[in-house]
Amino acid sequence: MLKNDLLIRALKGEVVSRPPVWIMRQAGRYLPEFMKLKNKYDFFTRCQTPELATKITLLPINQIGPDAAILFSDILVVLQAMNLKVEMKDGIGPWIPNPIKNKKDIKNIIIPNIKEKLGYVLEAIKMTQNELNQSIPLIGFAGSPWTLLCYAVQGQGSKTFDKAKALCFEQPEIAHQLLQKITDTTILYLKEKVTSGVNAIQLFDSWGGLLSPSDYDTFSWFYLQQIINEIKKISPTIVFAKGCWFALNKMSKSGVSALGIDWTCSAQNSRYLSGGNITLQGNFDPSRLLSPIPEIKKQVTQMINEFGKDKYIVNLGHGILPNIPVSHVQAFIDSVKQYQSK
Amino acid sequence: MLKNDLLIRALKGEVVSRPPVWIMRQAGRYLPEFMKLKNKYDFFTRCQTPELATKITLLPINQIGPDAAILFSDILVVLQAMNLKVEMKDGIGPWIPNPIKNKKDIKNIIIPNIKEKLGYVLEAIKMTQNELNQSIPLIGFAGSPWTLLCYAVQGQGSKTFDKAKALCFEQPEIAHQLLQKITDTTILYLKEKVTSGVNAIQLFDSWGGLLSPSDYDTFSWFYLQQIINEIKKISPTIVFAKGCWFALNKMSKSGVSALGIDWTCSAQNSRYLSGGNITLQGNFDPSRLLSPIPEIKKQVTQMINEFGKDKYIVNLGHGILPNIPVSHVQAFIDSVKQYQSK
Repeated sequence: MLKNDLLIRALKGEVVSRPPVWIMRQAGRYLPEFMKLKNKYDFFTRCQTPELATKITLLPINQIGPDAAILFSDILVVLQAMNLKVEMKDGIGPWIPNPIKNKKDIKNIIIPNIKEKLGYVLEAIKMTQNELNQSIPLIGFAGSPWTLLCYAVQGQGSKTFDKAKALCFEQPEIAHQLLQKITDTTILYLKEKVTSGVNAIQLFDSWGGLLSPSDYDTFSWFYLQQIINEIKKISPTIVFAKGCWFALNKMSKSGVSALGIDWTCSAQNSRYLSGGNITLQGNFDPSRLLSPIPEIKKQVTQMINEFGKDKYIVNLGHGILPNIPVSHVQAFIDSVKQYQSK
Repeated sequence: MLKNDLLIRALKGEVVSRPPVWIMRQAGRYLPEFMKLKNKYDFFTRCQTPELATKITLLPINQIGPDAAILFSDILVVLQAMNLKVEMKDGIGPWIPNPIKNKKDIKNIIIPNIKEKLGYVLEAIKMTQNELNQSIPLIGFAGSPWTLLCYAVQGQGSKTFDKAKALCFEQPEIAHQLLQKITDTTILYLKEKVTSGVNAIQLFDSWGGLLSPSDYDTFSWFYLQQIINEIKKISPTIVFAKGCWFALNKMSKSGVSALGIDWTCSAQNSRYLSGGNITLQGNFDPSRLLSPIPEIKKQVTQMINEFGKDKYIVNLGHGILPNIPVSHVQAFIDSVKQYQSK
């Protein structure tokens, strides 16, 4: 029914004329129209007002024309719904005034009624789908339990998330209780998102790469796999675990439709590590969009040649940076659309 | 002549009874004696006063007993010597008031007379060697040209070093001029360090892992290889490039004696990626030293079993964190000393 179903076909591994393209954080600060709304409404007002979330989701669709929309929201709305106060501070980013430290803190964390606590997301999905009118697919997303624990315990962004890791290594039973509660909530949340109409799900494990392979299994993958087991039955699912090249092989066997790849993993290494048969998504270095436009075009073509046009979704290797000129983003998208396989 | 030459023998690939052990940042903030000196003297006073640098270098040798000393200093003294003002701000870290932005800024960067500008480092080496009295080897170090460029351009620490990458991608010719000047200076600096008496050299490429494999070749490895070509002739050399698992194979063929490994690379992957024949150093997750002592002992033994006792130097996968109890560090060191191969 979708007019442009390239993303869905790539997720199924079908042969396509060119790979689909979308951009992580495509409705982001590099867009002047986004900045106007950012200056007018605070972060969580934008997330919690379906009309605003819809409007923001559609900005890049109208302006730069990717092959998929991704609902404007934030991974941290899940923690808010679980009874943890989360603020967004200018110049700092996410800010949790009372981060989780002990057993008592865990007791206050609830598994919420999704429709009650996150109904605004479900409403935004319906509103966005109505606007998109089957033109392109809409992606919904959630953070991995490990990545949400990082914020819930650290209380803010961090280079090392040392406090979060300290909780895991000093009081593992508390960490596991929290991870399981987040997992259970995320499964309920994503099921509702699919019911509300998203066409695909992406799971973000932004901080998985801070863990050793064996700690990754214990504190991240064990919970991601639970989510995948439930969601793969109802929706195509993409896992993007930044820095987790070491886990690509295991992930490729988990039942997901595609794996996101960061830019430190070459196309050749990505295909090798993921077993060669699963759809991959990535992995242009976001900073490389600062290169002159002819260089961007050259590198995008080379990237598609290296990954291959099939079983491949063009994207960045992480979210787009605020300082990228819109014309460079446009060149990135257009290079994919103009791609001619050799 | 060294009473304990385990490190040197491991760097040569010789068979040893147990692997040597030292810790990156072993003279660091986790040591109460270090904190006393930190509160009394500012950062660069500690670096630039040979008596203080010597005293700090020896603190962990006397207290926890590793198999090698590493001279207390900082990678940024090289930038200072090159005519760039570098400060150390409490709560912020390195601070460059006038970061490099353009061609004119590059012109002000000099290749210094090492004895004149960094004589205090050379004096500290002689003083430390006098105190060590051939008990254990002394390691000298330098940052990679790319990692120094990161600070020189960004002006401070960063998660993404986006300004540094922007310079490389927008004005590559300026980046390459700066990288070459840093390379030339580093070669002169390390030659003088070896002449002054260090027993081994470690090169830190702390931010190499922010680059894609092809940009890593262009902006980091091209310059590291120049340094290695000169220094391998006069000293055993270790390269530690954090996050650069993708470059281990190339590095293993560069003429270095050993490669440092971060904790995201399992022993098996490390041996595979580095070709199986070069000495490896690493890779305990620094946060894992927060685990209870019995768990640390178990994991250290397992790590040595996995890497193998030969062609192996026990270390962390990055610098030690300030919040690690000294007793846990002691347990780490002792576990290695008590290691019995199966």
